Amino acid sequence: MRTYLDCIPCFARQALDSARLETEDRRIHEQVMRDTLSLITRMDFRQSPPAMAQKIHRLIRDRTGVHDPYRDLKHRFNKMALDLYPELSRRVEASADPFETALRLAIAGNIIDLGVKTGLSEAQIQKAINRSFTAPLHTEIVRQLTDAIPSAKQILYLGDNAGEIVFDRLLIEQMPREKVTFVVRGQPVINDATIEDARIAGLTDIVTVIENGSDAPGTILEDCSQEFRDRFEQADLVIAKGQGNYETLSDVDKNIFFILKAKCTVIARGLGCEVGEMILRKSKVSGGVVHFA
Amino acid sequence: MRTYLDCIPCFARQALDSARLETEDRRIHEQVMRDTLSLITRMDFRQSPPAMAQKIHRLIRDRTGVHDPYRDLKHRFNKMALDLYPELSRRVEASADPFETALRLAIAGNIIDLGVKTGLSEAQIQKAINRSFTAPLHTEIVRQLTDAIPSAKQILYLGDNAGEIVFDRLLIEQMPREKVTFVVRGQPVINDATIEDARIAGLTDIVTVIENGSDAPGTILEDCSQEFRDRFEQADLVIAKGQGNYETLSDVDKNIFFILKAKCTVIARGLGCEVGEMILRKSKVSGGVVHFA
Repeated sequence: MRTYLDCIPCFARQALDSARLETEDRRIHEQVMRDTLSLITRMDFRQSPPAMAQKIHRLIRDRTGVHDPYRDLKHRFNKMALDLYPELSRRVEASADPFETALRLAIAGNIIDLGVKTGLSEAQIQKAINRSFTAPLHTEIVRQLTDAIPSAKQILYLGDNAGEIVFDRLLIEQMPREKVTFVVRGQPVINDATIEDARIAGLTDIVTVIENGSDAPGTILEDCSQEFRDRFEQADLVIAKGQGNYETLSDVDKNIFFILKAKCTVIARGLGCEVGEMILRKSKVSGGVVHFA
Repeated sequence: MRTYLDCIPCFARQALDSARLETEDRRIHEQVMRDTLSLITRMDFRQSPPAMAQKIHRLIRDRTGVHDPYRDLKHRFNKMALDLYPELSRRVEASADPFETALRLAIAGNIIDLGVKTGLSEAQIQKAINRSFTAPLHTEIVRQLTDAIPSAKQILYLGDNAGEIVFDRLLIEQMPREKVTFVVRGQPVINDATIEDARIAGLTDIVTVIENGSDAPGTILEDCSQEFRDRFEQADLVIAKGQGNYETLSDVDKNIFFILKAKCTVIARGLGCEVGEMILRKSKVSGGVVHFA
Protein backbone atom coordinates (compact mmCIF):
# COMPACT_ATOMS: atom_id res chain seq x y z
CA MET A 1 0.00 0.00 0.00
CA ARG A 2 1.01 3.60 -0.55
CA THR A 3 1.84 6.09 2.17
CA TYR A 4 -0.99 8.38 3.20
CA LEU A 5 -0.50 11.97 4.28
CA ASP A 6 -1.86 10.91 7.70
CA CYS A 7 1.33 8.86 8.09
CA ILE A 8 3.47 12.00 8.17
CA PRO A 9 2.68 13.17 11.73
CA CYS A 10 3.30 9.57 12.80
CA PHE A 11 6.71 9.46 11.07
CA ALA A 12 7.65 12.70 12.82
CA ARG A 13 6.62 11.33 16.22
CA GLN A 14 8.42 8.05 15.55
CA ALA A 15 11.62 9.87 14.58
CA LEU A 16 11.48 11.91 17.80
CA ASP A 17 10.82 8.84 19.96
CA SER A 18 13.67 7.06 18.29
CA ALA A 19 16.14 9.96 18.61
CA ARG A 20 15.29 10.28 22.31
CA LEU A 21 16.01 6.60 22.85
CA GLU A 22 19.39 7.01 21.20
CA THR A 23 20.74 10.09 22.96
CA GLU A 24 19.81 12.71 25.54
CA ASP A 25 21.45 15.44 23.44
CA ARG A 26 18.65 17.82 22.50
CA ARG A 27 20.68 19.38 19.70
CA ILE A 28 20.82 15.98 18.05
CA HIS A 29 17.06 15.51 18.60
CA GLU A 30 16.45 18.83 16.84
CA GLN A 31 18.81 17.98 13.99
CA VAL A 32 17.17 14.57 13.56
CA MET A 33 13.75 16.23 13.36
CA ARG A 34 14.85 18.85 10.84
CA ASP A 35 16.59 16.21 8.69
CA THR A 36 13.64 13.80 8.94
CA LEU A 37 11.17 16.46 7.81
CA SER A 38 13.47 17.47 5.01
CA LEU A 39 13.73 13.82 3.92
CA ILE A 40 9.93 13.42 3.96
CA THR A 41 9.47 16.49 1.74
CA ARG A 42 11.54 14.74 -0.93
CA MET A 43 9.85 11.33 -0.67
CA ASP A 44 7.64 9.57 -3.17
CA PHE A 45 4.41 8.84 -1.29
CA ARG A 46 3.58 5.98 -3.65
CA GLN A 47 6.07 3.97 -1.60
CA SER A 48 4.76 1.97 1.37
CA PRO A 49 5.04 3.41 4.91
CA PRO A 50 7.77 0.88 5.84
CA ALA A 51 9.81 1.99 2.80
CA MET A 52 9.63 5.57 4.10
CA ALA A 53 10.34 4.46 7.69
CA GLN A 54 13.37 2.48 6.48
CA LYS A 55 14.93 5.66 5.09
CA ILE A 56 14.02 7.69 8.17
CA HIS A 57 15.53 5.18 10.58
CA ARG A 58 18.68 4.90 8.46
CA LEU A 59 19.00 8.68 8.69
CA ILE A 60 18.52 8.62 12.48
CA ARG A 61 21.11 5.87 12.92
CA ASP A 62 23.49 7.89 10.78
CA ARG A 63 22.98 11.10 12.79
CA THR A 64 23.26 9.45 16.20
CA GLY A 65 25.74 6.69 15.45
CA VAL A 66 23.51 4.26 17.39
CA HIS A 67 22.96 0.98 15.54
CA ASP A 68 20.08 -0.46 17.60
CA PRO A 69 18.32 2.14 19.77
CA TYR A 70 15.43 -0.14 20.69
CA ARG A 71 17.71 -2.96 21.92
CA ASP A 72 16.94 -2.51 25.64
CA LEU A 73 13.22 -2.18 24.94
CA LYS A 74 13.28 -5.28 22.75
CA HIS A 75 14.94 -7.23 25.56
CA ARG A 76 12.35 -5.91 28.02
CA PHE A 77 9.44 -7.02 25.85
CA ASN A 78 11.04 -10.39 25.06
CA LYS A 79 11.39 -10.98 28.80
CA MET A 80 7.86 -9.80 29.53
CA ALA A 81 6.46 -12.15 26.87
CA LEU A 82 8.63 -15.08 28.02
CA ASP A 83 7.33 -14.57 31.55
CA LEU A 84 3.78 -14.84 30.20
CA TYR A 85 4.59 -17.80 27.94
CA PRO A 86 4.14 -20.78 30.35
CA GLU A 87 0.68 -19.66 31.46
CA LEU A 88 -0.40 -18.80 27.89
CA SER A 89 0.89 -22.13 26.64
CA ARG A 90 -1.21 -23.91 29.29
CA ARG A 91 -4.27 -21.91 28.25
CA VAL A 92 -3.71 -22.87 24.61
CA GLU A 93 -3.42 -26.59 25.42
CA ALA A 94 -6.41 -26.53 27.78
CA SER A 95 -8.66 -24.77 25.27
CA ALA A 96 -11.31 -26.42 23.10
CA ASP A 97 -9.51 -25.29 19.93
CA PRO A 98 -5.78 -24.87 20.64
CA PHE A 99 -5.01 -23.63 17.10
CA GLU A 100 -7.58 -20.85 17.25
CA THR A 101 -6.60 -19.87 20.79
CA ALA A 102 -2.94 -19.68 19.76
CA LEU A 103 -3.94 -17.66 16.67
CA ARG A 104 -5.84 -15.20 18.84
CA LEU A 105 -2.87 -14.82 21.18
CA ALA A 106 -0.51 -14.32 18.23
CA ILE A 107 -2.74 -11.45 17.05
CA ALA A 108 -2.91 -10.01 20.59
CA GLY A 109 0.91 -10.03 20.71
CA ASN A 110 0.98 -7.68 17.73
CA ILE A 111 0.18 -4.87 20.17
CA ILE A 112 3.92 -4.85 20.98
CA ASP A 113 4.63 -2.41 18.15
CA LEU A 114 6.76 0.45 19.42
CA GLY A 115 6.59 2.20 16.04
CA VAL A 116 2.99 3.01 16.96
CA LYS A 117 3.36 3.50 20.71
CA THR A 118 6.74 3.72 22.45
CA GLY A 119 5.30 3.86 25.96
CA LEU A 120 3.46 0.54 25.86
CA SER A 121 2.73 -0.89 29.31
CA GLU A 122 2.45 -4.43 30.57
CA ALA A 123 -1.15 -3.65 31.59
CA GLN A 124 -2.00 -2.80 27.97
CA ILE A 125 -0.51 -6.09 26.78
CA GLN A 126 -2.46 -7.98 29.44
CA LYS A 127 -5.64 -6.22 28.33
CA ALA A 128 -5.00 -7.19 24.69
CA ILE A 129 -4.49 -10.81 25.78
CA ASN A 130 -7.67 -10.90 27.85
CA ARG A 131 -9.72 -9.40 25.05
CA SER A 132 -8.26 -11.69 22.42
CA PHE A 133 -10.09 -14.78 23.71
CA THR A 134 -13.51 -13.37 22.92
CA ALA A 135 -12.87 -10.66 20.28
CA PRO A 136 -14.64 -11.27 16.95
CA LEU A 137 -12.54 -13.05 14.34
CA HIS A 138 -13.55 -14.04 10.80
CA THR A 139 -14.45 -17.71 11.42
CA GLU A 140 -14.46 -18.63 7.72
CA ILE A 141 -10.87 -17.44 7.32
CA VAL A 142 -9.82 -19.14 10.57
CA ARG A 143 -11.14 -22.33 8.99
CA GLN A 144 -9.32 -21.65 5.71
CA LEU A 145 -6.04 -21.11 7.56
CA THR A 146 -6.58 -24.20 9.72
CA ASP A 147 -7.29 -26.26 6.59
CA ALA A 148 -4.34 -24.82 4.63
CA ILE A 149 -1.73 -26.03 7.10
CA PRO A 150 -1.93 -29.83 6.66
CA SER A 151 -1.88 -29.50 2.87
CA ALA A 152 0.95 -26.94 2.73
CA LYS A 153 4.44 -28.17 1.92
CA GLN A 154 6.37 -25.06 2.94
CA ILE A 155 4.98 -22.54 5.41
CA LEU A 156 6.72 -19.16 5.60
CA TYR A 157 5.88 -17.21 8.76
CA LEU A 158 6.96 -13.56 8.57
CA GLY A 159 7.53 -12.27 12.09
CA ASP A 160 7.08 -8.69 13.17
CA ASN A 161 8.26 -7.48 16.57
CA ALA A 162 10.45 -8.55 19.47
CA GLY A 163 8.34 -9.85 22.37
CA GLU A 164 5.50 -10.48 19.94
CA ILE A 165 7.42 -13.40 18.45
CA VAL A 166 7.00 -15.30 21.73
CA PHE A 167 3.25 -15.13 21.00
CA ASP A 168 3.97 -16.33 17.44
CA ARG A 169 5.77 -19.30 18.97
CA LEU A 170 2.47 -20.40 20.57
CA LEU A 171 0.89 -20.52 17.12
CA ILE A 172 3.88 -22.19 15.44
CA GLU A 173 3.80 -24.89 18.11
CA GLN A 174 0.36 -25.79 16.73
CA MET A 175 1.85 -26.42 13.26
CA PRO A 176 4.01 -29.26 11.84
CA ARG A 177 7.33 -27.60 12.73
CA GLU A 178 9.39 -29.23 9.99
CA LYS A 179 7.35 -27.31 7.40
CA VAL A 180 7.75 -23.90 9.02
CA THR A 181 10.38 -21.28 8.29
CA PHE A 182 10.21 -18.22 10.53
CA VAL A 183 11.54 -14.94 9.11
CA VAL A 184 13.07 -11.99 10.97
CA ARG A 185 14.42 -8.68 9.68
CA GLY A 186 17.98 -8.58 8.42
CA GLN A 187 18.97 -5.58 10.58
CA PRO A 188 17.55 -3.82 13.65
CA VAL A 189 14.84 -1.25 12.89
CA ILE A 190 12.44 0.08 15.52
CA ASN A 191 11.55 -2.92 17.73
CA ASP A 192 11.23 -5.36 14.84
CA ALA A 193 12.47 -8.84 15.65
CA THR A 194 15.95 -9.84 14.52
CA ILE A 195 17.74 -13.17 14.73
CA GLU A 196 18.85 -12.29 18.29
CA ASP A 197 15.21 -12.00 19.39
CA ALA A 198 14.31 -15.27 17.65
CA ARG A 199 17.02 -16.97 19.71
CA ILE A 200 15.80 -15.37 22.95
CA ALA A 201 12.20 -16.36 22.14
CA GLY A 202 13.31 -19.95 21.60
CA LEU A 203 12.15 -20.00 17.99
CA THR A 204 15.54 -21.08 16.67
CA ASP A 205 15.21 -24.25 18.80
CA ILE A 206 11.92 -25.34 17.24
CA VAL A 207 11.89 -24.18 13.58
CA THR A 208 14.21 -22.91 10.85
CA VAL A 209 14.70 -19.16 11.28
CA ILE A 210 16.10 -16.99 8.49
CA GLU A 211 16.84 -13.29 8.13
CA ASN A 212 15.21 -11.44 5.23
CA GLY A 213 18.32 -9.37 4.51
CA SER A 214 16.54 -6.02 4.81
CA ASP A 215 16.41 -3.21 7.39
CA ALA A 216 12.85 -2.14 6.49
CA PRO A 217 10.13 -2.50 9.15
CA GLY A 218 8.13 -4.66 6.74
CA THR A 219 8.86 -6.99 3.82
CA ILE A 220 9.92 -5.06 0.71
CA LEU A 221 10.62 -8.00 -1.58
CA GLU A 222 13.06 -6.20 -3.87
CA ASP A 223 15.05 -5.10 -0.81
CA CYS A 224 15.29 -8.64 0.60
CA SER A 225 18.03 -11.21 0.04
CA GLN A 226 17.87 -13.73 -2.83
CA GLU A 227 17.66 -16.52 -0.23
CA PHE A 228 14.55 -14.95 1.27
CA ARG A 229 12.99 -14.25 -2.11
CA ASP A 230 13.50 -17.88 -3.15
CA ARG A 231 11.82 -19.11 0.03
CA PHE A 232 8.98 -16.66 -0.50
CA GLU A 233 8.56 -17.88 -4.09
CA GLN A 234 8.58 -21.55 -3.06
CA ALA A 235 6.29 -21.27 -0.03
CA ASP A 236 2.75 -22.43 -0.66
CA LEU A 237 1.48 -20.83 2.55
CA VAL A 238 2.62 -17.42 3.75
CA ILE A 239 1.55 -16.02 7.11
CA ALA A 240 2.47 -12.32 7.40
CA LYS A 241 2.34 -10.79 10.83
CA GLY A 242 1.70 -7.18 11.74
CA GLN A 243 1.08 -3.84 10.07
CA GLY A 244 4.50 -3.47 8.43
CA ASN A 245 4.23 -6.79 6.61
CA TYR A 246 0.65 -5.97 5.61
CA GLU A 247 1.62 -2.53 4.30
CA THR A 248 4.41 -3.97 2.15
CA LEU A 249 2.76 -7.20 0.94
CA SER A 250 -0.94 -6.37 0.60
CA ASP A 251 -0.53 -5.67 -3.14
CA VAL A 252 1.79 -8.62 -3.87
CA ASP A 253 0.60 -11.34 -6.24
CA LYS A 254 0.67 -14.22 -3.74
CA ASN A 255 -1.85 -15.95 -1.46
CA ILE A 256 -1.04 -14.59 1.98
CA PHE A 257 -2.78 -14.77 5.35
CA PHE A 258 -2.31 -11.46 7.15
CA ILE A 259 -2.70 -11.45 10.91
CA LEU A 260 -2.45 -8.22 12.86
CA LYS A 261 -4.02 -5.75 15.18
CA ALA A 262 -5.15 -2.61 13.32
CA LYS A 263 -3.30 0.09 15.22
CA CYS A 264 -3.85 3.30 13.28
CA THR A 265 -6.67 5.03 11.43
CA VAL A 266 -5.00 4.64 8.01
CA ILE A 267 -4.80 0.85 8.33
CA ALA A 268 -8.23 0.60 9.93
CA ARG A 269 -9.76 2.63 7.09
CA GLY A 270 -8.01 0.43 4.50
CA LEU A 271 -9.26 -2.74 6.21
CA GLY A 272 -12.73 -1.34 6.90
CA CYS A 273 -12.40 -1.91 10.63
CA GLU A 274 -11.98 0.00 13.87
CA VAL A 275 -8.62 0.86 15.42
CA GLY A 276 -7.76 -1.91 17.90
CA GLU A 277 -9.58 -4.70 16.04
CA MET A 278 -7.98 -8.12 15.59
CA ILE A 279 -7.55 -8.84 11.90
CA LEU A 280 -7.20 -12.08 9.95
CA ARG A 281 -7.35 -11.55 6.19
CA LYS A 282 -6.44 -13.66 3.23
CA SER A 283 -5.33 -12.03 0.01
CA LYS A 284 -6.68 -13.72 -3.08
CA VAL A 285 -5.03 -13.31 -6.43
CA SER A 286 -7.01 -13.57 -9.62
CA GLY A 287 -5.80 -12.33 -12.99
CA GLY A 288 -2.94 -10.50 -11.33
CA VAL A 289 -5.33 -8.44 -9.16
CA VAL A 290 -5.17 -8.88 -5.40
CA HIS A 291 -8.50 -9.18 -3.59
CA PHE A 292 -9.25 -9.92 0.01
CA ALA A 293 -11.45 -12.71 1.28
CA MET B 1 7.16 29.60 25.80
CA ARG B 2 9.34 28.02 23.17
CA THR B 3 8.26 25.34 20.71
CA TYR B 4 9.07 21.78 21.70
CA LEU B 5 9.98 19.05 19.24
CA ASP B 6 6.80 17.27 20.36
CA CYS B 7 4.85 20.11 18.71
CA ILE B 8 6.11 19.08 15.25
CA PRO B 9 3.87 16.01 14.73
CA CYS B 10 0.98 18.19 15.91
CA PHE B 11 1.81 20.97 13.41
CA ALA B 12 1.90 18.36 10.63
CA ARG B 13 -1.50 16.96 11.66
CA GLN B 14 -2.95 20.46 11.98
CA ALA B 15 -1.70 21.42 8.51
CA LEU B 16 -3.30 18.29 7.03
CA ASP B 17 -6.61 18.86 8.84
CA SER B 18 -6.62 22.44 7.66
CA ALA B 19 -5.76 21.62 4.03
CA ARG B 20 -8.54 19.01 3.96
CA LEU B 21 -11.05 21.56 5.19
CA GLU B 22 -10.03 23.93 2.42
CA THR B 23 -10.09 21.66 -0.61
CA GLU B 24 -10.71 18.07 -1.65
CA ASP B 25 -7.80 18.20 -4.10
CA ARG B 26 -5.30 15.64 -2.85
CA ARG B 27 -2.49 17.12 -4.90
CA ILE B 28 -2.91 20.34 -2.95
CA HIS B 29 -2.98 18.39 0.34
CA GLU B 30 0.31 16.77 -0.59
CA GLN B 31 1.86 20.07 -1.66
CA VAL B 32 0.70 21.72 1.57
CA MET B 33 2.30 18.94 3.60
CA ARG B 34 5.60 19.08 1.71
CA ASP B 35 5.71 22.88 2.01
CA THR B 36 4.74 22.82 5.70
CA LEU B 37 7.48 20.34 6.56
CA SER B 38 9.96 22.34 4.57
CA LEU B 39 8.91 25.49 6.46
CA ILE B 40 9.31 23.75 9.83
CA THR B 41 12.84 22.61 8.97
CA ARG B 42 13.81 26.28 8.60
CA MET B 43 12.07 27.53 11.76
CA ASP B 44 13.59 28.88 14.94
CA PHE B 45 12.17 26.67 17.70
CA ARG B 46 12.77 29.40 20.29
CA GLN B 47 9.59 30.97 18.92
CA SER B 48 6.28 30.06 20.56
CA PRO B 49 4.03 27.38 18.99
CA PRO B 50 1.47 30.02 17.88
CA ALA B 51 4.25 31.95 16.10
CA MET B 52 5.08 28.78 14.16
CA ALA B 53 1.39 28.00 13.57
CA GLN B 54 0.84 31.54 12.26
CA LYS B 55 3.43 30.96 9.53
CA ILE B 56 2.09 27.51 8.72
CA HIS B 57 -1.51 28.71 8.36
CA ARG B 58 -0.41 31.67 6.23
CA LEU B 59 1.34 29.19 3.93
CA ILE B 60 -1.76 26.98 3.75
CA ARG B 61 -4.02 29.95 2.95
CA ASP B 62 -1.55 30.98 0.27
CA ARG B 63 -1.43 27.51 -1.33
CA THR B 64 -5.21 26.95 -1.27
CA GLY B 65 -6.46 30.49 -1.76
CA VAL B 66 -9.00 29.94 1.05
CA HIS B 67 -9.09 32.80 3.53
CA ASP B 68 -11.08 31.18 6.35
CA PRO B 69 -11.22 27.37 6.10
CA TYR B 70 -12.72 26.89 9.56
CA ARG B 71 -15.62 29.31 8.94
CA ASP B 72 -18.35 26.65 8.73
CA LEU B 73 -16.96 24.84 11.77
CA LYS B 74 -16.81 28.12 13.71
CA HIS B 75 -20.45 28.79 12.88
CA ARG B 76 -21.37 25.28 13.94
CA PHE B 77 -19.66 25.63 17.32
CA ASN B 78 -21.06 29.14 17.87
CA LYS B 79 -24.53 27.75 17.29
CA MET B 80 -23.93 24.73 19.49
CA ALA B 81 -22.73 26.97 22.32
CA LEU B 82 -25.59 29.46 21.86
CA ASP B 83 -28.06 26.57 22.09
CA LEU B 84 -26.48 25.61 25.43
CA TYR B 85 -26.29 29.20 26.67
CA PRO B 86 -29.81 29.69 28.20
CA GLU B 87 -29.54 26.54 30.33
CA LEU B 88 -25.94 27.27 31.37
CA SER B 89 -26.88 30.84 32.25
CA ARG B 90 -29.68 29.54 34.49
CA ARG B 91 -27.25 27.16 36.18
CA VAL B 92 -24.81 30.01 36.83
CA GLU B 93 -27.49 32.22 38.38
CA ALA B 94 -28.93 29.37 40.45
CA SER B 95 -25.54 28.34 41.83
CA ALA B 96 -24.16 29.20 45.26
CA ASP B 97 -21.22 31.08 43.70
CA PRO B 98 -22.21 32.37 40.24
CA PHE B 99 -18.74 33.81 39.53
CA GLU B 100 -16.96 30.53 40.21
CA THR B 101 -19.56 28.52 38.29
CA ALA B 102 -19.21 30.83 35.29
CA LEU B 103 -15.41 30.62 35.59
CA ARG B 104 -15.60 26.82 35.53
CA LEU B 105 -17.83 26.88 32.47
CA ALA B 106 -15.50 29.33 30.71
CA ILE B 107 -12.64 26.87 31.27
CA ALA B 108 -14.79 23.95 30.08
CA GLY B 109 -15.54 25.91 26.88
CA ASN B 110 -11.84 25.93 26.07
CA ILE B 111 -12.26 22.35 24.87
CA ILE B 112 -13.54 23.86 21.59
CA ASP B 113 -10.01 24.07 20.19
CA LEU B 114 -9.92 22.61 16.69
CA GLY B 115 -6.15 23.15 16.49
CA VAL B 116 -5.89 20.23 18.91
CA LYS B 117 -8.82 18.12 17.73
CA THR B 118 -10.71 18.82 14.51
CA GLY B 119 -13.32 16.12 15.06
CA LEU B 120 -14.69 17.45 18.35
CA SER B 121 -18.19 16.19 19.15
CA GLU B 122 -21.07 17.76 21.03
CA ALA B 123 -20.92 14.81 23.46
CA GLN B 124 -17.30 15.71 24.32
CA ILE B 125 -18.29 19.31 24.98
CA GLN B 126 -21.18 18.17 27.19
CA LYS B 127 -18.79 15.90 29.09
CA ALA B 128 -16.38 18.81 29.66
CA ILE B 129 -19.29 20.93 30.95
CA ASN B 130 -20.53 18.22 33.31
CA ARG B 131 -17.06 17.62 34.70
CA SER B 132 -16.31 21.31 35.12
CA PHE B 133 -18.72 21.73 38.06
CA THR B 134 -16.74 19.44 40.30
CA ALA B 135 -13.22 19.33 38.79
CA PRO B 136 -10.48 20.57 41.13
CA LEU B 137 -9.58 24.25 40.72
CA HIS B 138 -7.00 26.24 42.67
CA THR B 139 -9.30 27.89 45.25
CA GLU B 140 -6.71 30.47 46.36
CA ILE B 141 -6.35 31.77 42.78
CA VAL B 142 -10.12 31.72 42.26
CA ARG B 143 -10.28 34.02 45.31
CA GLN B 144 -7.49 36.25 43.97
CA LEU B 145 -9.27 36.62 40.64
CA THR B 146 -12.63 37.26 42.36
CA ASP B 147 -11.00 39.93 44.54
CA ALA B 148 -9.10 41.54 41.64
CA ILE B 149 -12.23 42.40 39.68
CA PRO B 150 -13.84 45.07 41.91
CA SER B 151 -10.52 46.90 42.32
CA ALA B 152 -9.52 46.72 38.63
CA LYS B 153 -10.09 49.78 36.47
CA GLN B 154 -9.60 48.17 33.08
CA ILE B 155 -10.10 44.47 32.53
CA LEU B 156 -8.75 43.02 29.29
CA TYR B 157 -10.22 39.60 28.44
CA LEU B 158 -8.31 37.83 25.66
CA GLY B 159 -10.65 35.41 23.92
CA ASP B 160 -9.58 32.19 22.25
CA ASN B 161 -11.96 30.21 20.06
CA ALA B 162 -15.31 30.54 18.32
CA GLY B 163 -18.07 28.80 20.29
CA GLU B 164 -15.90 29.00 23.39
CA ILE B 165 -16.53 32.74 23.56
CA VAL B 166 -20.19 32.06 24.37
CA PHE B 167 -18.88 30.38 27.53
CA ASP B 168 -16.66 33.44 28.14
CA ARG B 169 -19.80 35.56 27.94
CA LEU B 170 -21.16 33.72 31.00
CA LEU B 171 -18.08 34.81 32.97
CA ILE B 172 -18.06 38.35 31.62
CA GLU B 173 -21.70 38.72 32.66
CA GLN B 174 -20.45 38.26 36.23
CA MET B 175 -18.16 41.29 35.88
CA PRO B 176 -18.85 45.05 35.79
CA ARG B 177 -19.26 45.21 32.01
CA GLU B 178 -18.19 48.83 31.60
CA LYS B 179 -14.67 47.86 32.72
CA VAL B 180 -14.28 44.92 30.33
CA THR B 181 -12.72 44.93 26.88
CA PHE B 182 -12.94 41.61 25.04
CA VAL B 183 -10.25 40.86 22.46
CA VAL B 184 -10.49 38.71 19.34
CA ARG B 185 -7.89 37.88 16.67
CA GLY B 186 -7.38 40.36 13.86
CA GLN B 187 -7.76 37.71 11.12
CA PRO B 188 -9.14 34.17 10.88
CA VAL B 189 -6.70 31.44 11.92
CA ILE B 190 -7.80 27.89 12.80
CA ASN B 191 -11.08 28.27 14.73
CA ASP B 192 -9.91 31.26 16.76
CA ALA B 193 -12.63 33.81 17.41
CA THR B 194 -12.78 36.90 15.21
CA ILE B 195 -15.03 39.95 15.43
CA GLU B 196 -17.71 38.07 13.46
CA ASP B 197 -17.86 35.38 16.16
CA ALA B 198 -18.00 38.02 18.90
CA ARG B 199 -21.07 39.49 17.20
CA ILE B 200 -22.71 36.07 16.86
CA ALA B 201 -21.95 35.27 20.52
CA GLY B 202 -23.61 38.54 21.54
CA LEU B 203 -20.42 39.87 23.14
CA THR B 204 -20.47 43.07 21.09
CA ASP B 205 -23.86 43.88 22.68
CA ILE B 206 -22.56 43.73 26.24
CA VAL B 207 -18.91 44.86 26.26
CA THR B 208 -16.36 46.67 24.11
CA VAL B 209 -14.81 44.19 21.67
CA ILE B 210 -11.58 44.94 19.82
CA GLU B 211 -9.44 43.04 17.34
CA ASN B 212 -5.78 42.49 18.20
CA GLY B 213 -4.60 43.10 14.64
CA SER B 214 -2.78 39.77 14.33
CA ASP B 215 -3.42 36.46 12.54
CA ALA B 216 -1.52 34.37 15.10
CA PRO B 217 -3.47 31.77 17.12
CA GLY B 218 -2.28 33.45 20.32
CA THR B 219 -1.19 36.92 21.42
CA ILE B 220 2.23 37.82 20.03
CA LEU B 221 2.48 41.39 21.36
CA GLU B 222 4.93 42.66 18.75
CA ASP B 223 2.64 41.35 16.02
CA CYS B 224 -0.47 43.10 17.43
CA SER B 225 -1.81 46.55 16.57
CA GLN B 226 -0.74 49.64 18.49
CA GLU B 227 -4.33 50.03 19.71
CA PHE B 228 -4.23 46.58 21.24
CA ARG B 229 -0.77 47.08 22.75
CA ASP B 230 -1.92 50.32 24.38
CA ARG B 231 -4.94 48.57 25.89
CA PHE B 232 -2.74 45.74 27.09
CA GLU B 233 -0.32 48.23 28.66
CA GLN B 234 -3.12 50.16 30.39
CA ALA B 235 -5.11 47.18 31.65
CA ASP B 236 -4.62 46.43 35.34
CA LEU B 237 -6.23 43.02 35.02
CA VAL B 238 -5.62 40.69 32.09
CA ILE B 239 -7.49 37.41 31.69
CA ALA B 240 -5.94 35.26 28.96
CA LYS B 241 -7.96 32.37 27.69
CA GLY B 242 -6.69 29.13 26.19
CA GLN B 243 -3.43 27.45 25.23
CA GLY B 244 -2.45 29.86 22.45
CA ASN B 245 -2.64 32.91 24.72
CA TYR B 246 -0.78 31.01 27.45
CA GLU B 247 1.96 29.90 25.07
CA THR B 248 2.54 33.46 23.83
CA LEU B 249 2.10 35.41 27.11
CA SER B 250 3.44 33.09 29.82
CA ASP B 251 6.85 34.82 29.72
CA VAL B 252 5.52 38.40 29.44
CA ASP B 253 6.23 40.86 32.23
CA LYS B 254 2.63 41.48 33.30
CA ASN B 255 0.23 40.13 35.91
CA ILE B 256 -2.04 37.81 33.95
CA PHE B 257 -4.65 35.25 34.95
CA PHE B 258 -4.47 32.33 32.53
CA ILE B 259 -7.53 30.11 32.24
CA LEU B 260 -7.49 27.06 30.01
CA LYS B 261 -7.85 23.37 29.66
CA ALA B 262 -4.47 21.65 29.27
CA LYS B 263 -4.93 19.81 25.99
CA CYS B 264 -1.53 18.40 25.10
CA THR B 265 1.38 16.74 26.84
CA VAL B 266 3.75 19.67 26.22
CA ILE B 267 1.45 22.15 27.98
CA ALA B 268 0.56 19.68 30.71
CA ARG B 269 4.26 19.02 31.40
CA GLY B 270 4.95 22.78 31.52
CA LEU B 271 2.07 23.35 33.93
CA GLY B 272 2.82 20.23 35.97
CA CYS B 273 -0.66 18.81 35.40
CA GLU B 274 -2.41 16.04 33.52
CA VAL B 275 -3.81 16.40 30.00
CA GLY B 276 -7.48 17.42 30.32
CA GLU B 277 -7.10 19.30 33.61
CA MET B 278 -8.79 22.67 34.14
CA ILE B 279 -6.17 25.32 34.76
CA LEU B 280 -6.32 28.70 36.48
CA ARG B 281 -2.87 30.27 36.94
CA LYS B 282 -1.67 33.72 37.77
CA SER B 283 1.68 34.91 36.52
CA LYS B 284 3.60 36.96 39.05
CA VAL B 285 6.31 39.31 37.99
CA SER B 286 9.15 40.16 40.31
CA GLY B 287 12.41 41.73 39.19
CA GLY B 288 11.50 41.13 35.57
CA VAL B 289 11.20 37.38 36.12
CA VAL B 290 7.81 35.76 35.60
CA HIS B 291 6.72 33.28 38.24
CA PHE B 292 3.45 31.46 38.66
CA ALA B 293 1.27 31.50 41.76
